[in-house]
Amino acid sequence: MFFQEPALQYEVTVEEPDPHFAKLLQQAIGGQEGEMRVALQYMFQAWAVPEQHTEYRNLLMETAAEELGHIEMLASAVTKNLRGSSKSMRDEVQETTETAEAMTAQGPRQFLSSGQSAMPVDSNGVPFTGNYIVASGNLAGDLYANVMAESTGRTLATRLWEYTDDPGMKDMLSYLIARDTMHQNQWLQALETLDDPVPVPASFPQKEENQEYNYTFMSTRREEQPDPEMPWTQGDSPDGKGQFSYAAQQPGDGEVVAPDPDEMTHDEPNAGGD
Amino acid sequence: MFFQEPALQYEVTVEEPDPHFAKLLQQAIGGQEGEMRVALQYMFQAWAVPEQHTEYRNLLMETAAEELGHIEMLASAVTKNLRGSSKSMRDEVQETTETAEAMTAQGPRQFLSSGQSAMPVDSNGVPFTGNYIVASGNLAGDLYANVMAESTGRTLATRLWEYTDDPGMKDMLSYLIARDTMHQNQWLQALETLDDPVPVPASFPQKEENQEYNYTFMSTRREEQPDPEMPWTQGDSPDGKGQFSYAAQQPGDGEVVAPDPDEMTHDEPNAGGD
Amino acid sequence: MFFQEPALQYEVTVEEPDPHFAKLLQQAIGGQEGEMRVALQYMFQAWAVPEQHTEYRNLLMETAAEELGHIEMLASAVTKNLRGSSKSMRDEVQETTETAEAMTAQGPRQFLSSGQSAMPVDSNGVPFTGNYIVASGNLAGDLYANVMAESTGRTLATRLWEYTDDPGMKDMLSYLIARDTMHQNQWLQALETLDDPVPVPASFPQKEENQEYNYTFMSTRREEQPDPEMPWTQGDSPDGKGQFSYAAQQPGDGEVVAPDPDEMTHDEPNAGGD
Amino acid sequence: MFFQEPALQYEVTVEEPDPHFAKLLQQAIGGQEGEMRVALQYMFQAWAVPEQHTEYRNLLMETAAEELGHIEMLASAVTKNLRGSSKSMRDEVQETTETAEAMTAQGPRQFLSSGQSAMPVDSNGVPFTGNYIVASGNLAGDLYANVMAESTGRTLATRLWEYTDDPGMKDMLSYLIARDTMHQNQWLQALETLDDPVPVPASFPQKEENQEYNYTFMSTRREEQPDPEMPWTQGDSPDGKGQFSYAAQQPGDGEVVAPDPDEMTHDEPNAGGD
Amino acid sequence: MFFQEPALQYEVTVEEPDPHFAKLLQQAIGGQEGEMRVALQYMFQAWAVPEQHTEYRNLLMETAAEELGHIEMLASAVTKNLRGSSKSMRDEVQETTETAEAMTAQGPRQFLSSGQSAMPVDSNGVPFTGNYIVASGNLAGDLYANVMAESTGRTLATRLWEYTDDPGMKDMLSYLIARDTMHQNQWLQALETLDDPVPVPASFPQKEENQEYNYTFMSTRREEQPDPEMPWTQGDSPDGKGQFSYAAQQPGDGEVVAPDPDEMTHDEPNAGGD
Amino acid sequence: MFFQEPALQYEVTVEEPDPHFAKLLQQAIGGQEGEMRVALQYMFQAWAVPEQHTEYRNLLMETAAEELGHIEMLASAVTKNLRGSSKSMRDEVQETTETAEAMTAQGPRQFLSSGQSAMPVDSNGVPFTGNYIVASGNLAGDLYANVMAESTGRTLATRLWEYTDDPGMKDMLSYLIARDTMHQNQWLQALETLDDPVPVPASFPQKEENQEYNYTFMSTRREEQPDPEMPWTQGDSPDGKGQFSYAAQQPGDGEVVAPDPDEMTHDEPNAGGD
Repeated sequence: MFFQEPALQYEVTVEEPDPHFAKLLQQAIGGQEGEMRVALQYMFQAWAVPEQHTEYRNLLMETAAEELGHIEMLASAVTKNLRGSSKSMRDEVQETTETAEAMTAQGPRQFLSSGQSAMPVDSNGVPFTGNYIVASGNLAGDLYANVMAESTGRTLATRLWEYTDDPGMKDMLSYLIARDTMHQNQWLQALETLDDPVPVPASFPQKEENQEYNYTFMSTRREEQPDPEMPWTQGDSPDGKGQFSYAAQQPGDGEVVAPDPDEMTHDEPNAGGD
Repeated sequence: MFFQEPALQYEVTVEEPDPHFAKLLQQAIGGQEGEMRVALQYMFQAWAVPEQHTEYRNLLMETAAEELGHIEMLASAVTKNLRGSSKSMRDEVQETTETAEAMTAQGPRQFLSSGQSAMPVDSNGVPFTGNYIVASGNLAGDLYANVMAESTGRTLATRLWEYTDDPGMKDMLSYLIARDTMHQNQWLQALETLDDPVPVPASFPQKEENQEYNYTFMSTRREEQPDPEMPWTQGDSPDGKGQFSYAAQQPGDGEVVAPDPDEMTHDEPNAGGD
Repeated sequence: MFFQEPALQYEVTVEEPDPHFAKLLQQAIGGQEGEMRVALQYMFQAWAVPEQHTEYRNLLMETAAEELGHIEMLASAVTKNLRGSSKSMRDEVQETTETAEAMTAQGPRQFLSSGQSAMPVDSNGVPFTGNYIVASGNLAGDLYANVMAESTGRTLATRLWEYTDDPGMKDMLSYLIARDTMHQNQWLQALETLDDPVPVPASFPQKEENQEYNYTFMSTRREEQPDPEMPWTQGDSPDGKGQFSYAAQQPGDGEVVAPDPDEMTHDEPNAGGD
Repeated sequence: MFFQEPALQYEVTVEEPDPHFAKLLQQAIGGQEGEMRVALQYMFQAWAVPEQHTEYRNLLMETAAEELGHIEMLASAVTKNLRGSSKSMRDEVQETTETAEAMTAQGPRQFLSSGQSAMPVDSNGVPFTGNYIVASGNLAGDLYANVMAESTGRTLATRLWEYTDDPGMKDMLSYLIARDTMHQNQWLQALETLDDPVPVPASFPQKEENQEYNYTFMSTRREEQPDPEMPWTQGDSPDGKGQFSYAAQQPGDGEVVAPDPDEMTHDEPNAGGD
Repeated sequence: MFFQEPALQYEVTVEEPDPHFAKLLQQAIGGQEGEMRVALQYMFQAWAVPEQHTEYRNLLMETAAEELGHIEMLASAVTKNLRGSSKSMRDEVQETTETAEAMTAQGPRQFLSSGQSAMPVDSNGVPFTGNYIVASGNLAGDLYANVMAESTGRTLATRLWEYTDDPGMKDMLSYLIARDTMHQNQWLQALETLDDPVPVPASFPQKEENQEYNYTFMSTRREEQPDPEMPWTQGDSPDGKGQFSYAAQQPGDGEVVAPDPDEMTHDEPNAGGD
Repeated sequence: MFFQEPALQYEVTVEEPDPHFAKLLQQAIGGQEGEMRVALQYMFQAWAVPEQHTEYRNLLMETAAEELGHIEMLASAVTKNLRGSSKSMRDEVQETTETAEAMTAQGPRQFLSSGQSAMPVDSNGVPFTGNYIVASGNLAGDLYANVMAESTGRTLATRLWEYTDDPGMKDMLSYLIARDTMHQNQWLQALETLDDPVPVPASFPQKEENQEYNYTFMSTRREEQPDPEMPWTQGDSPDGKGQFSYAAQQPGDGEVVAPDPDEMTHDEPNAGGD
């Protein structure tokens, strides 16, 4: 169950409104690396966690609600970058060709579709999609998904930080970067509390997987190469359950055979009708 | 540059063709956890790796080509499950209502659109999308994305293994599960060869992130709760750069203010025309 | 800013787990008429509302948070319909062909991708998309979008209510239908508090629109028809600003002319090379 | 059944070709608020209308065919803005960096994919999708969807009108704005001819909905607030069937419980293999 | 400009309503091979045709309007297959588990979202998308796209014809198959009226393309193979402008080098902060 | 089975890095006319080809692997256009407003999401989708799809060639244009080796299609027109199986009737509850 309060989680100020930056900020709202993704991902993961793991469900829900607040902060930042400009957009449009170019270089839907406010889309105007969300039902897999999500999210935030000179925007991003640091750490820590989670899913009986190829680095080079002696071709595997080895060749055992399709499919190209 | 050979990487046999299973296998081809995702993800990641990290580019490309062969194996499995049936589909269709139900329960496009063969879609017929691919340009982030991809991929493969009784299909899946074990391990190993990669991106100067909130677990519970004393509210953080702490409250510093939109947007609802 | 509490907004019980119904419930989570749509739609609308309309922003945010709780209730309902079955899925799968059909008739990703839990997709497994969200920046237009969203949402809920016999599910849906009744009424009421909002946007000067065609019903019938004397071909218009009239013909004034493309486009089909 | 004539419904002229405006016009063709949406929406709605409501089916089809003509007008406008430029694009490209910027700021696919003509995409190049179409089978719900569609469509058209200075384009938009005025009015009028349509669907027996929460405004504020005494917390509801009331709290009755998943799902994270 | 008439282009009758077939018919409405695709494709192609080719624009528009009528016929067929059943759906739902399975095997949104009518989606419920439409601005390329569209469309129609036993449906499909025969022939004929259109685009000066590789079949086999002496490795090319030859190898000239990214991207994985 | 080698199929050099061109090149990677489409299309087509047509399967697979190498070349070209710039992006960003405009005019995700490297998206940032892929199971239909794909692909490449002045880029494109010439020719040649493939699918018995309308050009003009005496209204049809004729009218035989929906759908708008 959710509640809200008319306050932003952290202060959002914009000194010099910059509609170009408003376009870039959309990536952090509705993009692949954005806050809509993590907020919803943590919720759906939480709702799958059974009773004996309540502490993980709580951890996920605590963070999901925080991320909802980040969407709100970024939406506020977008609106302030789009609207705050002192002079009328009408003047601007009518002045020069260069301005016209500038306006279409911005996200045109931030003017046309939303009346200068934030949208559930990325920096190219591509709509947010449930495809970004990973919630596999397997907690270890989900935690790795979360480490990844916070890694790409923090990388995005640092790139936005590099792009802008506005002190207000830099401060907001500095807060979001810090939260991503925390979240990366908390998901890694949660992984450490799991007992032997790799390879995911750990509950699959190892004897049922093919024993010849489960710790073998398989080269796909056209010409056979000698073992390059890398950490992933020899030595112990990180899961502690095998020894890396090297195969210069793919097995290549399978014959390529496609059975004939049923005649109802009319796949046959060249047999003319009656 | 790529080459091919008319052989499957590993044998694919189907004893008892099962069009229902053909539908489920599509998830492993064009789905969020499927082989098209990883093959293309590793390629795009590889193409971003600069010269000083050639060993990682090679690692990524070696694996990408292997995954292309997995798509091929699964496509072969789909065709064999759809086509191998001894009696004519025409008879089947015309026999009973139950069969009609069965046919629509299968992926109807595997008959209607592809003439009983594999498609670049998931088990619901939703087309493969570039949205599934994570290639951030940051190697550490990408490697976490790969661990995640192989984790959810292996989880999918084990669920398919549980579903089928066909010895040929179980053997193929046992091979694919083994390869996912290897790939999870190789990406984890590659992460270990990086020097201090967390928090991703590690090159962002830590002093520029907000120092008050970067190791603080922030509760979003409606009523303030005492520190639950979990591994993510106290103790050292996994990145070795901070100490977890606990905040019972979100900062809540920000005022919710949206500036007035430009009048050109016609956002104003109730000011009638002249 | 958002908060959460580990309780469901309203009780969710399932007497007889029904994985088929779990598939249908997905429509109310991630579908065009679902709760993800309204929760996010109300948020994005709220974030665009300027200071002088705070009461509408509050109204939108109050409801957005309630809708988040509805997603949670439905996710719980999905999990209980998928998981609660007393006998092992393994037995079921291995028993009969009919069961196999049943399993693929269900949403296969609810087993394959999410381990028997809810997903951000609709009843066909099509992922949620930001395309469903309408947030135009114009409050009157947004309120009509909300009336529509609650109308199609309530219609969906009544169809689900008709489909199921489970008393727990019927009770949950009875609650959600009631909330949709309230929300339809509150958005209609909010529209009534606006001063003269139609035609949306009301701030566009009426004299700038074409005065010949703004209250004329234009027939597109192949053969000209006499005025059918319907409420939309004669009498006062609902906006109180015009009189309906009838035109048996489209104006048809425009000449169809496409200028020649630039030769750089190579649109010219039949001019051979050098 | 449909017919066509080689004439535009209304004259389309462009004095000063502006490829930037061509990009913006795409929103009115293939965007969420565009003409493809309404043309197809009205068709699909019409095809669902049963015999006793023929007058509504006719109303919908009459308008659908008109909207097809609007797509055609806008496509003509796009082509004229892209192609009419007097000097060769080749010169332009090779002149300056600024032009290069301008060309990529425009929709690059209007050059690359369509050879300077209109496309079934929005102003960001995002393809038109059936997701935009609402056709619920319930006439009242569909009519509200149409009021909304014409509201957001007219808002878009006024924003395009504000953006351009070209007299031809302003005239075309003035016509389209007028048609949207008419269409908003006709759908509102059609709603008024229905007998008691709210709450949609009106045929659901009111006694089957939860009687405690169907006219109650439910606050989701973190801290309980007194009744704000708004038109939606007290007084008669617009459907004439209830009295608004105020609840400072969500019910919060439900226990959060996810049953254990089947072991076939391998959701269990930390139980190692054999 | 478009017109309509309340009649179907060709009679549509259903003797035995079959909701399963209704689901399959959706592929011919909103699917990759469906009528929405061709109707819109022909329109957008027509709108790009410049003055000197009016006969092709007319040809395209004549056919576009016919295809709109095919969507209408198929929508009518869907409604009749979904709704015509004599006994109440309510009884059916409540009877048996098998019926429940059947209902979810059908397209659930045809009940849940559209109230038993046609939708702008394919047979899996995936929404129609502008991605299906090919309109390149180059007439020859567009005509090949049309041959392809009618080929896959006719293949789909024959598969639907094979599936159903209903005489009404078989008759409707027999008509649609005939129209696809005509349309394939008309596009092929139109191609023949073009002067030397291959390779598309024919206006690109042949001397500007690489002269070494424009008629060479390039083998990608891992091991070099001798010329297989196929019609595409030797002899005249169909465009009459070259002679096929065979290369046992890809050129392989290019060095794989990715320049270093800018440090602002934070691509560097392992350089820790200050 | 696939193999790779660390070399580009053909040299890729960039003299003057141009991030704007990098954006345009994305169309040739992940766009509707791009190399991801053809590489995957040829694979899926190949996997459907049964034993008796091995030569076509080989032809398809040979070319698929070549196209993978084209994606790689283009990805290299993107990286070199984005990264090669001598001066720091940081300086550039901070210099002028014009640069800010330029950066947002480029694909912002090429900086924000990928750290200056190629992405699986088109020139507008719209992600690659399996919707672009045509693999019908019918070889003749597939070959026409391939002619079309290479036609639109070559058209795209010539437009990119026209746009750029960079000698390295022009040389790379000249190679890709040459390969498209070859591929168009090889698919046309393969079509010629088929025995009587039109109309596709040729195996459907011609007597089962409606004999009245299979070679008739059907006018949809509002007013009846006399036979325009075009090559598609009279004379022999290209498939050699009929004679074109002309119909000034659509048949118009069908009555528009939608049966009543089941009351469970609550389609009835105005029948209030109890």
